[in-house]
Parts: sequence; C-alpha cells; structure tokens
Amino acid sequence: MKHLLSLEKLPREEMLSILRNVSAFKQGRKQDPRRPLAGQTWAMIFAKSSTRTRVSFEVGIAELGGRPMFLSATDIQLGRGEPIKDTARVLGRMVHGAVIRTYAQSDVEQFAEFSGIPTINALTDLEHPCQILTDVSTIEELRGPIAGKVVAFVGDGACNVPSSWIWAAARLGFEFRVASPRRYQPPADLLRRAGGSIVCTEDPAAAADGADVLYTDVWVSMGKEAEAAERRRELAHYQINRALVQRAKPGALVMHCLPAYRGLEIDEATFEAHAETIFTQAENRLHVQKAILDWIVQP
Amino acid sequence: MKHLLSLEKLPREEMLSILRNVSAFKQGRKQDPRRPLAGQTWAMIFAKSSTRTRVSFEVGIAELGGRPMFLSATDIQLGRGEPIKDTARVLGRMVHGAVIRTYAQSDVEQFAEFSGIPTINALTDLEHPCQILTDVSTIEELRGPIAGKVVAFVGDGACNVPSSWIWAAARLGFEFRVASPRRYQPPADLLRRAGGSIVCTEDPAAAADGADVLYTDVWVSMGKEAEAAERRRELAHYQINRALVQRAKPGALVMHCLPAYRGLEIDEATFEAHAETIFTQAENRLHVQKAILDWIVQP
Amino acid sequence: MKHLLSLEKLPREEMLSILRNVSAFKQGRKQDPRRPLAGQTWAMIFAKSSTRTRVSFEVGIAELGGRPMFLSATDIQLGRGEPIKDTARVLGRMVHGAVIRTYAQSDVEQFAEFSGIPTINALTDLEHPCQILTDVSTIEELRGPIAGKVVAFVGDGACNVPSSWIWAAARLGFEFRVASPRRYQPPADLLRRAGGSIVCTEDPAAAADGADVLYTDVWVSMGKEAEAAERRRELAHYQINRALVQRAKPGALVMHCLPAYRGLEIDEATFEAHAETIFTQAENRLHVQKAILDWIVQP
Repeated sequence: MKHLLSLEKLPREEMLSILRNVSAFKQGRKQDPRRPLAGQTWAMIFAKSSTRTRVSFEVGIAELGGRPMFLSATDIQLGRGEPIKDTARVLGRMVHGAVIRTYAQSDVEQFAEFSGIPTINALTDLEHPCQILTDVSTIEELRGPIAGKVVAFVGDGACNVPSSWIWAAARLGFEFRVASPRRYQPPADLLRRAGGSIVCTEDPAAAADGADVLYTDVWVSMGKEAEAAERRRELAHYQINRALVQRAKPGALVMHCLPAYRGLEIDEATFEAHAETIFTQAENRLHVQKAILDWIVQP
Repeated sequence: MKHLLSLEKLPREEMLSILRNVSAFKQGRKQDPRRPLAGQTWAMIFAKSSTRTRVSFEVGIAELGGRPMFLSATDIQLGRGEPIKDTARVLGRMVHGAVIRTYAQSDVEQFAEFSGIPTINALTDLEHPCQILTDVSTIEELRGPIAGKVVAFVGDGACNVPSSWIWAAARLGFEFRVASPRRYQPPADLLRRAGGSIVCTEDPAAAADGADVLYTDVWVSMGKEAEAAERRRELAHYQINRALVQRAKPGALVMHCLPAYRGLEIDEATFEAHAETIFTQAENRLHVQKAILDWIVQP
Repeated sequence: MKHLLSLEKLPREEMLSILRNVSAFKQGRKQDPRRPLAGQTWAMIFAKSSTRTRVSFEVGIAELGGRPMFLSATDIQLGRGEPIKDTARVLGRMVHGAVIRTYAQSDVEQFAEFSGIPTINALTDLEHPCQILTDVSTIEELRGPIAGKVVAFVGDGACNVPSSWIWAAARLGFEFRVASPRRYQPPADLLRRAGGSIVCTEDPAAAADGADVLYTDVWVSMGKEAEAAERRRELAHYQINRALVQRAKPGALVMHCLPAYRGLEIDEATFEAHAETIFTQAENRLHVQKAILDWIVQP
C-alpha cells in the first residue's frame, strides 16, 4: 500500500520514479491509452476550498479512467461529529483511493492508517507535496536537471510550501534559500531533520543573488486571515519585483503557486512578464498528479 | 475557437445551424452514437444556483461523451480573490470547455478571451442565449417555422430573457412584443442596435392580440430580491391568465422559462392547462444545449 | 414503473428478490460485467448531509454503468421556491432515476408521482428502507436466514430506522424488540398496521435477553438537534455496552447504522469489539443498493 503523505516520507528513489513519468503523461495527454484507475472511484475530501488542486485532480483521475467524487467540508466533516478512524473505515470499503486537503497532518495520516486505501496529501498545514513535486518537474522541464541549482523562496518560510521544498532539496541535491523575517523562518528542528543545502536569511536580495529560480507564495494563506494586516506589514519587503529579479541569474525563472496577489508578494509587471512560466507550473499540477496516481496504484 | 456569449454576437447562419441539429439530438437521445466531447472535461462555473440549467448541461455533456465538472460559487469565486484572467488561464490549460452562469457579461467575455477554450454563457445579467435558442426550437417543434410569427412577452422587459429574444427576433424574422410598465421596458439603445420587428407597449392585452406565443418569466429574478415587493406591485397587471390567453390566437402556446410563481406572473389554471408545452420547453434545454455543444467543438 | 419509497409499500416477494441478488453484487464487485444503468444519469437529491448514503449510492450507480449527479440542499431546494411537482416534471424529462434524502415522506411520494422515473427513498422522517434492507442482508450474510431470529433495538424507537425494521419484521418473519422510554416508543397505529411479532418495552435488558442482534442508532438524529440535551437525559439508560451484550445470545451481533457517538448510545469498547460487523454493515449499503438499483430498472 503506497501513500503520498509528505515529501519527508517519500524516499529519493520514489521521488525520482514519479518525476521520470511526468513528461509521458504531459506529451501523451490526448492519446494516452493507459487507464490505471479504470473501475475506481476516488474520494476527494477538501476541508478548504481550492481551484487548481481540485480541478487538476478531478481531470487527472478521470483521464486515468477513474471517477473522482468531490466531497467538500459541507458534504463531509472529517474529524467533526465522527472520528476520522470511522470515516476512514467506511470510505476504505467503498472507494479505491483518497485525495485529502485539510488542516492537521495527523488527520491525513490517521485516514491512511485506518482506510487501507492509497491516500494523497493535497495540502495540510505541514506539507504540500503535490505542489513541490510539480515545481521541481516544471524547473526540470524548462531548465534541465535541478541538481546543483539554486531555488530562492521569498516570503513566509514557516509554512507548508517551503517545508516541502526543504525535503525536496535534501533529497534531490539542490540549494534552497529562504528569505523571511526571523519569525517566519523554517523551524530549526525541521532543518536539522532534513539536512541538505538550506540557507535561511532575512535579506531577500541575498537569497536572490545568482539564483536559478525565484519563488513565492501568498503571504496570508488559508486559515491565517486573522493575521492578515500584521503579515502584510511584516512581509512588505519580501516581494518579487523587477529589482529582485535583477539580482537573480539572467534568465532566472519566476514561479508562483497561485493565487497571486499583485502588489503584495509579487508586482503586476513581474507576474505578467513571467506568466508563461507560472501558468505552465499551474498546468503541470495535472501531469505530475497523474504520474503520482499512476505510481501510487502500482503494486 | 467558437463561443456562445450572447445572441447579439451569434450570426444568423450559426443560429440556424444550431437549430437545425436539435431534432436529431432529441429523437436520437437513446441511441445516438456521436461522442463529440469524448475525453473532454467541461467546467460548469455557476455563481448563481440553478436546477434546469445545471441538470440539462450536466446530462448533455455526459451524453455527448464528456465529463461535466460542476463548480459552485462556494467552490470557485470567479473574479473574487483571484482576477478572472488568472482563473481563466489556469482552467484553460486543464479543461476543454466552460459553461458559465454569473452576473456580469464582461466576466464571461474575459473568461473566453483568456482561457482559450470554448465558453458558453449559461445566463448573465445581459443575456440568456441558451434559453431563447431553446424557446425558438420549441416553438418550431410545436408550430413550425418561427419566421412571421408573433411572440408576446409579458413582464419585466428589461432583463436578460427579453434581451436575448430581441436579438433572436432581429435575426430570425419574427415579431417580438414586450408588454411592461414603462420602467421595465427594454433599453432604447438595445432596440436601436438590434433592429428587427420589436413592439413595446404598456398594455398586456395589446401585446397578446392575435399572438402565436404568450411568454413570461419570474418578476423577481435572482439578484433582485431586494426589490421584490416593489416589483410585485408594479408588475401586478402583467400576468398571463385566462383573459389574456383569450386575446391571443386560438391554440396559441403559453411558455414559461421556470420556476413559475403561481398567482404572480401566471395563474395556476393557465399554467397547468399549458403544462405539456412548458415542460417540453424545459426538456428541450437538454436537446438544444447538446446541439450547441456539438456546434461549438466543431472546427 | 418501480419505486422504493418505504418498506411498508414493498411486498414480501420484491423484498426477497432484492435480498437474493446482494451476494452476487458483493462477490462480483470487481469483475461484474452487468451495466443495467448504462447511459443513464441519476439525480441524487440530498436535503440533509450524508456520508455513507451519498458515497455508497454514487459508487453503486457508477459501478452499474450510470452517472450519479449529486444535488445538495444548496443546489436544489426541493419544495422551497418551486413546487415539487414542477421540479419532478422537469427532472423526470432529463434524468433516468432519482435517489432522495429529505424530511417529509410526502415529498418523496409526490416526486415519484410527478417525475415518472424510478425513485428511491434514501431517508425520510418516516422510513429508511435502504438501511434496513442492508441490515437484514448483513445479518443473513453473517448468521444465515433471519426468519425466526430476534433483533433488539435499543434507543429512540419512534423514528425512521425502527419504523422500517417493523415492516421488515412483519414481512420476513422475525421478532423485533424495541427498548425505549415510553415517549420514544413506536406509534400504536404503525404497530397495528404492520402486524408481525413486535415487542415494545421500556427495559433494555428485557429486550436484549437472548437476542441474536443488538442494534442502535444515534439518539439525536438530524433535525432533532434542539432536543439534544433532553434526549441524552431521557435515553441515558438505553446504551449498548458490555452488560447489555451479556444478556444477548452468545455470539450475538452488535450493529450500528453510524455515525456512532461513543459513551452515548454505545460505549467505545463495545463498538470496537464489534467494529468488523459494524463496518461490514456500512460496506453492505453499497452492495444492497446496487441490488435495489438493478431491481428497480428491470421492467
């Protein structure tokens, strides 16, 4: 039984095996005859709303021959009313796999344990493995092997997206730099556990210096709305803009996992100048997740 | 790339081409082997709730071999949080077409421009093209060619349904009469731009005189709930009832695009006497929209 | 045209015919080539939220070749805004069957009458026929023919689940005991109409004595939240626990239609000791409902 619950728990060889398959799914989208999910229904349990994650998984599951069944927070209250171990035991006997977006990592792990079906983390407070596998794949598609490259993340370095980046960097041998105010830096014990080449700084320009990729995410992620004003003030200097791009390597990629708030974490001109990269990155969620699904149902 | 954003922008020849195909889809519903949407996922983005439009499109897309993906206002907030041009660029790379029900016509047009996928207006504040194509098709099914006929609309003449009727009348050569209080009459510039044989009056009896079709819609459409009491008072005399039907041509059709509020825009006895017509009209949404989908994906 | 609106209206022969087919659907889940719903779309109209009922019907319809279309209370307001007879006449011309979870039994019956399509009661205030057919099937799977057995229900005996049990007992020849406080006992006129071997008592131990099956349900079902504190107080002694199980026949089954509230209608240790039975019961919703769907579309 395979799961994708975090990049922390995904061995390097499995990561490489998923990434190797992406281009076949991308190039063969129209004519690909493989139907590894034929006859299967996959539950998509989303406690938070989502456009990209939801649509890319629904389309991906369907294109692999399966049937996605979307269950929103109002349809099914994971862990409220009914213990997760009960919901998991019921669903595990009815459906063939689960894609879960929720808050606590422990919910996803408990679901995987009790359901006995392949379970994919489609975002928790701890990690966002599907996004970062997509980002790595996009960088390799556009710039070749990621080993030895420098990816500079600018913004809130203490949340799920940079955490998954840290594990990817440790496994795949690239340098990951985080530019954040002190209180938004990655937890020390995560850095210790992951190892790898991770640089933390409070200076965005230092992080961007000669980088192959500049990467950012929203300052106020879902669930943090109460801190919105404070976060906007404290992260105000951590914006990707023309000045910062000029510090990076010529031709550096600018990436954003969307939705983008112009004038906050990125300015409009920089976003639109790099829109082709950013929307290729968004599209690749589809192809990478098809590779993940195909990998997860293989014995 | 074809879209159906309004009847205003749909040339007469295209309109005729869609209408010609309806009866094949209706008669062949069970055995039709055509699957023009095979392998495709279509996003159905609905900012307003809906029964007929939603169900008819979901069933129609599926019967043409495609997979409908319903996204409600709570699933995806078109134009809130994220600019439409970003949502459109993401979805355009993942799905194969879009059916959109929303408020502003500009949202649908912007989506079509940035997504690069076939886009269908399933109701905006400006037009309701799928409904009026269905109505025309229903009239022709039950009474033969619409050219030369008289369609009398009684009620709020300033909203999307009569606006689409005006364009249909101009393109297809029938007379369209609107009976509304002065402030609910169609905008003067629309009448000027559309041309055609359009009669506006404040007198329902004059509109109904010798008409082939009497048509009405709810007085308080979605988004106008704040004006409910006022509208009910001002539109009180614009009801389809036995007296009005007697002014029309013997055997005239009575049509309603539903939901019907008995005792307001139509009385119970008249509604039930013409229920077979009205529910045929409802059913025809399915067949006409299949013809629209088939037309829109043809190169 | 067949419907499943209640066990009251389901003749014994039809009940047996459905039950006979379950094991074929259960054993053949993976390879079953039958597709009795091929080309069909089934509306699933759910006025109350649901996990087990929704998922089991969606998966079951899909595995029989059909397409489930889930419509929640926010998507379609059955009986609010639009009369049910109108919604039914519209849907009846677009979809091929309906599964409805709602409050009033009359809504389901009116829908069946006006839609002209096979209609299944997936829970009303009056009955829960799919659950009780599943329970009977589960008992027969685990313990052989139900005729002559004793099923003891402990809890609120005045709601839909025990009502359907009463009709099943009358038709299939087993003894059904209800242990409830006086005001939660089944209505006298239901007992009169159903006949059969039904025992009502206020004493849980007396009901459990030598029983083949101990069965319970939540004390506070959906729609009764306002009475929660009162119900918990009045039903406090009607719990399935180790002491009660010891009154039953050795090896008696403990069943629960879920969700389970530990420490209320059942204690944690008893629930977990009988979890394999309870989750088999949950899983069997899928197989029994496939047998119901297959039966209902046969001419």
